[in-house]
Amino acid sequence: MAVKAQVLYDFTAEPGNNELTVHEGETLTITNQNVGGGWVEAQNSRGNVGLVPVDYVEVNSASAQAPATQYIDARNQGNNNSTANTQGVNGNEAWTATTWSNSYPADNWNYTEQEPAGNNGSVYSFDEEWDDDSDDGKSTGGYGGSQAEDGGTMQRSGAHSTMKLSLNKFPGFSKTPNPEVYLLTKHITKGNDRLSVYPGEVGPVWLYPQTQLDCVVADPKKGSKMYGLKSYIEYQITPNTTNRPVNHRYKHFDWLYERLVEKFACALPVPGLPDKQVTGRFEEEFIKMRMERLQGWMSRMCRHPVISNSEVFQLFLNYRDEKEWKLGKRKAEKDETVGVKIFSTIDPELPELDPAQVEQKYEVYNQFTRSMDNSVKELLAVGNLHWKRCTGPLQKEYRQIGKAFQNMSSVFNTSGYPRESTLTEALTATGKTYEEIAEVIAAQPRKDLHFLLETNNEYKGLLGCFPDTIGVHKAAIDKVKEADHLVMTNKISQQDKHTMEKNLSTMSYALQAEMNHFHSNRIYDYNRLMQFYLEEQVKFYETIAEKLKKALGQYTTI
Amino acid sequence: MAVKAQVLYDFTAEPGNNELTVHEGETLTITNQNVGGGWVEAQNSRGNVGLVPVDYVEVNSASAQAPATQYIDARNQGNNNSTANTQGVNGNEAWTATTWSNSYPADNWNYTEQEPAGNNGSVYSFDEEWDDDSDDGKSTGGYGGSQAEDGGTMQRSGAHSTMKLSLNKFPGFSKTPNPEVYLLTKHITKGNDRLSVYPGEVGPVWLYPQTQLDCVVADPKKGSKMYGLKSYIEYQITPNTTNRPVNHRYKHFDWLYERLVEKFACALPVPGLPDKQVTGRFEEEFIKMRMERLQGWMSRMCRHPVISNSEVFQLFLNYRDEKEWKLGKRKAEKDETVGVKIFSTIDPELPELDPAQVEQKYEVYNQFTRSMDNSVKELLAVGNLHWKRCTGPLQKEYRQIGKAFQNMSSVFNTSGYPRESTLTEALTATGKTYEEIAEVIAAQPRKDLHFLLETNNEYKGLLGCFPDTIGVHKAAIDKVKEADHLVMTNKISQQDKHTMEKNLSTMSYALQAEMNHFHSNRIYDYNRLMQFYLEEQVKFYETIAEKLKKALGQYTTI
Repeated sequence: MAVKAQVLYDFTAEPGNNELTVHEGETLTITNQNVGGGWVEAQNSRGNVGLVPVDYVEVNSASAQAPATQYIDARNQGNNNSTANTQGVNGNEAWTATTWSNSYPADNWNYTEQEPAGNNGSVYSFDEEWDDDSDDGKSTGGYGGSQAEDGGTMQRSGAHSTMKLSLNKFPGFSKTPNPEVYLLTKHITKGNDRLSVYPGEVGPVWLYPQTQLDCVVADPKKGSKMYGLKSYIEYQITPNTTNRPVNHRYKHFDWLYERLVEKFACALPVPGLPDKQVTGRFEEEFIKMRMERLQGWMSRMCRHPVISNSEVFQLFLNYRDEKEWKLGKRKAEKDETVGVKIFSTIDPELPELDPAQVEQKYEVYNQFTRSMDNSVKELLAVGNLHWKRCTGPLQKEYRQIGKAFQNMSSVFNTSGYPRESTLTEALTATGKTYEEIAEVIAAQPRKDLHFLLETNNEYKGLLGCFPDTIGVHKAAIDKVKEADHLVMTNKISQQDKHTMEKNLSTMSYALQAEMNHFHSNRIYDYNRLMQFYLEEQVKFYETIAEKLKKALGQYTTI
Repeated sequence: MAVKAQVLYDFTAEPGNNELTVHEGETLTITNQNVGGGWVEAQNSRGNVGLVPVDYVEVNSASAQAPATQYIDARNQGNNNSTANTQGVNGNEAWTATTWSNSYPADNWNYTEQEPAGNNGSVYSFDEEWDDDSDDGKSTGGYGGSQAEDGGTMQRSGAHSTMKLSLNKFPGFSKTPNPEVYLLTKHITKGNDRLSVYPGEVGPVWLYPQTQLDCVVADPKKGSKMYGLKSYIEYQITPNTTNRPVNHRYKHFDWLYERLVEKFACALPVPGLPDKQVTGRFEEEFIKMRMERLQGWMSRMCRHPVISNSEVFQLFLNYRDEKEWKLGKRKAEKDETVGVKIFSTIDPELPELDPAQVEQKYEVYNQFTRSMDNSVKELLAVGNLHWKRCTGPLQKEYRQIGKAFQNMSSVFNTSGYPRESTLTEALTATGKTYEEIAEVIAAQPRKDLHFLLETNNEYKGLLGCFPDTIGVHKAAIDKVKEADHLVMTNKISQQDKHTMEKNLSTMSYALQAEMNHFHSNRIYDYNRLMQFYLEEQVKFYETIAEKLKKALGQYTTI
């Protein structure tokens, strides 16, 4: 029996890559489910055969063969669990360690965020390379749609403005410990794994390395696998420490991102990777943009004292061979110090804060990150508008002005009047100057606005993580507030309560260190950004003035 | 019996000027028809009484008193005549001196141009001051509607792009001689009235005066009449020859214009006056604009060697008292050397051109003026668009950019982070700079585009006159082409034919002199215009660059 599948979304084939263009609602015949790498081979009604992303089709269960029926949406399962447990809390069930983890407000975790046929939760895979389509997954590009008209890229999923923290790994899954597990912990990790928080000039700060780690993402190369059936792009990453390049595909970045979220996202915002993209992903322009954004992401990770110093991050940058990489990968995936357990590695060596102080700080940070998020979005919106204006109507208008002057010159040239040439030549030059200015105006956003939007877009991603991170602290505060009641009802001891308060204080110091890190980076970034933007703007206006001056010089002095 | 009237157009009362706001379709009771000055006093259904322009109402003939029934539309009469006679020509009726005048193509004369309830042709008047509403007539303002949003002025009639040559005075009225009368004329005017055409460096040219006449239109003052019931604006005109100011109202300019059209329009384009306006005519902005345009019109008339030297123009600028003015007015109105007769005052003293040469020149001039008319209109269109862009979306956008930076600064100020102030102060300054730039951008069109549009608008008016003027020459060429046939059928003698050809040559020299005058003025005007425009544009972009540089200086160097 032939396996049939319904197309869920339009997909445009990458030329020369054995893909098949399909349209939403179309019925396909699956000709090979064992292609792997997130792809299936299918035939359309016109008899054309090619590869289609597995996420883009829904295999009819009636007709499906064994592998298709094994499709399990792990995330849906996760969601269902969570809903059930949250109801438990709302219903004032007895507070226990196992239900606590579910009391985080659902809106903080963004369960409701739409992600069509999300392959993150899918286990429709055939080998270790199941997430091969990390190169090929869902896409958004540009700043809120502004680039859609430039590249014509497909845009479907929402922006990665929240961390994957909220998805299947957390909460309720075996590997991730519940916050309670930490709040009641008395033991503090010693040794290399210990994260230091020091009293700095601006308040509690992370321990910064002597030399700041950095790396260069460069030299994207096309590779292929499956006997040349499938292609991918590999980037070269060279850290300033070893100066030895390593190669990674987008899916490796994605793996790293997953590890960092799992391990650190309770304590610090881990910004999402640049968005995925299906069509146009081999186009030069797209590769350049992705590389630039991967560079931005890596630089930010390198700048973070906790992340850059972590074993998994060091592995990513420094692995020497395939074996070391595979071993390191396995180890990282088995890391137990993840989720809220990360706080047990922190020993602030600072006076304990009482819960009221902690809550006050939480409010300040929450307010600030929300306000800044709005402000960043406002700037992105006006920036996008301005981009469109410059490359659209303004360019057109200056071209028209240039054309009108040149037409006037042409008409004057037909006068037959003997003293015409000085004026007509000057008029033509003026017209051409305005046409040049049109191009200068249209090209300008790429020179200055681009960096302004990229940086703000990065901050939008970063700020989108704070509700999750701060939410962990909020949940901890709420639990500590309940401590008296828990002591009274003998759920925990007085000693437990004190431990909870002390650990809450530690969490707060971690958050303070992180906020101070964020602030110092923010000031550095925006200072640099604004200077760059203004310098380019000055050059822009000076260039135009200079061009016009030259045109003016062509006229006879009167 | 009460006189009733229907309101034809919306009219908004000028505050404090005893006027009544009325709406199209409303029925009014005329309470005083003898107000004069183009106004009637009327009462609306709510009992409010005030003055309404007579052209804005249609008095019900059934209920009308004697003066209202005397309403005659002289222009309609003119049209009827013309249609009848043109049909005669089409029907190949015998060619006679009396029907010839009607053979000018109707589309050249623009009989069909709409002018709602045109008071120019109306004789609904009570005294010599019948055209008192020249201050108050129909309105257009600005460049093709662009200013409608600025001033909110009422805009109804078409632009004065063709000369009144085409209206009731011409052809078919007693005072205006038929072209034939000139073509068959052997006598050439001698003495002071003679207009000279010399061979200049660029071809045939008018005789230019040693010193160029110029004048300053200034100091608009509000006057009143009818015991303060009606107000008007009087302008002071000071010629550079006498340095003695004379006063004129708009209606006097209009009188002068009528005389110049009557006398010269067959030989040279007489551009229309700045448009009339009913509402808002006492507003400062409007008075300033009208004054500026009257200045432009007067300067152009002063620059014209034929017009500036004419008796009627000299009277307008130099009259010493009311008596001299009134006498001069009467004399000018009785001037017989008007219409095509003006050519009989021209003696080119240049070798006679044959009709083929004349026709070729005619084609060149016709083509050039039409092309330039299109080009001027294109420039006006893009200029208007640019004006709207600068004062509308662009200003708004730069304000938004400024606001976004300032909001960002405000948010940063709430961080509680101790090292914030340098950046927030610089960001605020940047935001304010962009707000300033928004205002600079919005103010710029008045600084440079205004003059560009005004000049092109003037040229649009001037170019709109050429079809009429050139049409006279075309008609003459056609007649001369028919000369052989006329000689054969004994309608004219061989001698007459030669006279016609010689006179056609004279007409052609007049046109050549006029075209050369036009060209030299055009080159001067556009050279000056473009220099001014570019100078202001350079300043504009330099100002912005300077402002941004200053903002940039506020950031910490990194």
